[in-house]
Amino acid sequence: MNSTKNDNNSLPMGEMSGGQRGNLYNYILGIADNSLILAQRLGELCGHGPNLETDIALTNISLDLLGQTRSYYQYAAKVEGAGKSEDDIAFLRLEREYKNILLVEQPNTHFGYVMARQFLFDIYHLMMMKELQKSKDETLRAVANKGIKEVSYHKRFSSDWIKRLGDGTEESHGKMQEAIDDLWRYTNEMFQMTAADTEMAEAGIGVDVSKFKEAYYKEVSEVLKEATLTVPESKYFAKGGKEGIHTEHMGYILADLQYMQKTFPNMTW
Amino acid sequence: MNSTKNDNNSLPMGEMSGGQRGNLYNYILGIADNSLILAQRLGELCGHGPNLETDIALTNISLDLLGQTRSYYQYAAKVEGAGKSEDDIAFLRLEREYKNILLVEQPNTHFGYVMARQFLFDIYHLMMMKELQKSKDETLRAVANKGIKEVSYHKRFSSDWIKRLGDGTEESHGKMQEAIDDLWRYTNEMFQMTAADTEMAEAGIGVDVSKFKEAYYKEVSEVLKEATLTVPESKYFAKGGKEGIHTEHMGYILADLQYMQKTFPNMTW
Repeated sequence: MNSTKNDNNSLPMGEMSGGQRGNLYNYILGIADNSLILAQRLGELCGHGPNLETDIALTNISLDLLGQTRSYYQYAAKVEGAGKSEDDIAFLRLEREYKNILLVEQPNTHFGYVMARQFLFDIYHLMMMKELQKSKDETLRAVANKGIKEVSYHKRFSSDWIKRLGDGTEESHGKMQEAIDDLWRYTNEMFQMTAADTEMAEAGIGVDVSKFKEAYYKEVSEVLKEATLTVPESKYFAKGGKEGIHTEHMGYILADLQYMQKTFPNMTW
Repeated sequence: MNSTKNDNNSLPMGEMSGGQRGNLYNYILGIADNSLILAQRLGELCGHGPNLETDIALTNISLDLLGQTRSYYQYAAKVEGAGKSEDDIAFLRLEREYKNILLVEQPNTHFGYVMARQFLFDIYHLMMMKELQKSKDETLRAVANKGIKEVSYHKRFSSDWIKRLGDGTEESHGKMQEAIDDLWRYTNEMFQMTAADTEMAEAGIGVDVSKFKEAYYKEVSEVLKEATLTVPESKYFAKGGKEGIHTEHMGYILADLQYMQKTFPNMTW
């Protein structure tokens, strides 16, 4: 990856204060890091799918997310104005500087977890992307416009698998229920607003994700019911990712993710 | 870890040629890297043992091996004379520069694999250590003299588990047989001699491991039979580790192992 020059965005960055630029930078990372880390998790499965079609589908979803990540990071680098490249942002941060939600860093325990994680994220992701299409920021709007078809496909793919496995054999039903039950605790964090989120939403640039929490759980519940799965009733939710406080899995993800750049600094392909 | 000054070794390094010193350096790494990588694998299990006693035992074995590794690396750093520390040697090499055998890098698939890997290594390790006690090199002799009690304990511990699980339930027997069958292909590499091994053995410094291949398979077979396990008959063996050509697992091990040093260069505790 090389930083692409993009001087066409119309956001009047010159008119923003340093604090606003900082919030925009953090806002972008808050979206982009979800895609990066989920892409990395899906990338781990490359060549390990249950069949060739699913293997390729998961890898394609991973690549879609990585493509979105690149667009976000290129823009974030520009907003920050510190001369960093997309690679610097992707590979050279410390764990606490990654702002992804805890859901996307959860491991590929079994195929049910892979699909449950994807499904729980996709429903949210599509809602967020639809709103982001209305952003006053032209670059974010463009990324959303380009990515929304991809994310719509991701959601259809993962929802289909939820139904297929939930309403499948006794074993597949049990495994899917286990995955949904385990990952449920990470859903609520998606609707929490950081300071950067709030400021960017108020400026009409970011999305107020707290607004579609109800719609999210309604849609998720409908799919789960169609899949003959039980909607978890747990009211205990984990959080921290958006503030850089991650689960124990994150360090291992970064160890893999950063290995090449740290072993061969400034490497290019 | 900080490099410990040790000026008491009596090897007349001043009398060695650059080539001989290089071979001694490589010879030491060939022994030490086995201990480092196996220690790392065992370290992954810390807090995940099947019960507290076994958890602590495996962690202690890991620490024994790490202690030996430190002694070897401190000596290797001195032999190389390039101003490196034990940490540089442990953490800052590229994959091809690690000379451990493939056996020790194999994953902790299940507890049967952990014990089979340990057992197949321990029998070899103790034989090697006994011979190393006769080395003309005072430092290597000292490490062997200090380590031999530890390795004797490792061997007793792993052999006991082979018998306990092999001659246990139908499930434990099946899992142990599976692990032995899978790991068997990595046993033969232990008895291959690199150029450095050969020169050091001829100089009376290193161990001619090829000599106890027969005794190794005899001893292993006896334990397996006592454990009601079948001795694999496969004649296909994998190799490459001693030349730095590793299995796909090695990169992930190094990503974890090197993460802290690469994220915080020159860090100390």
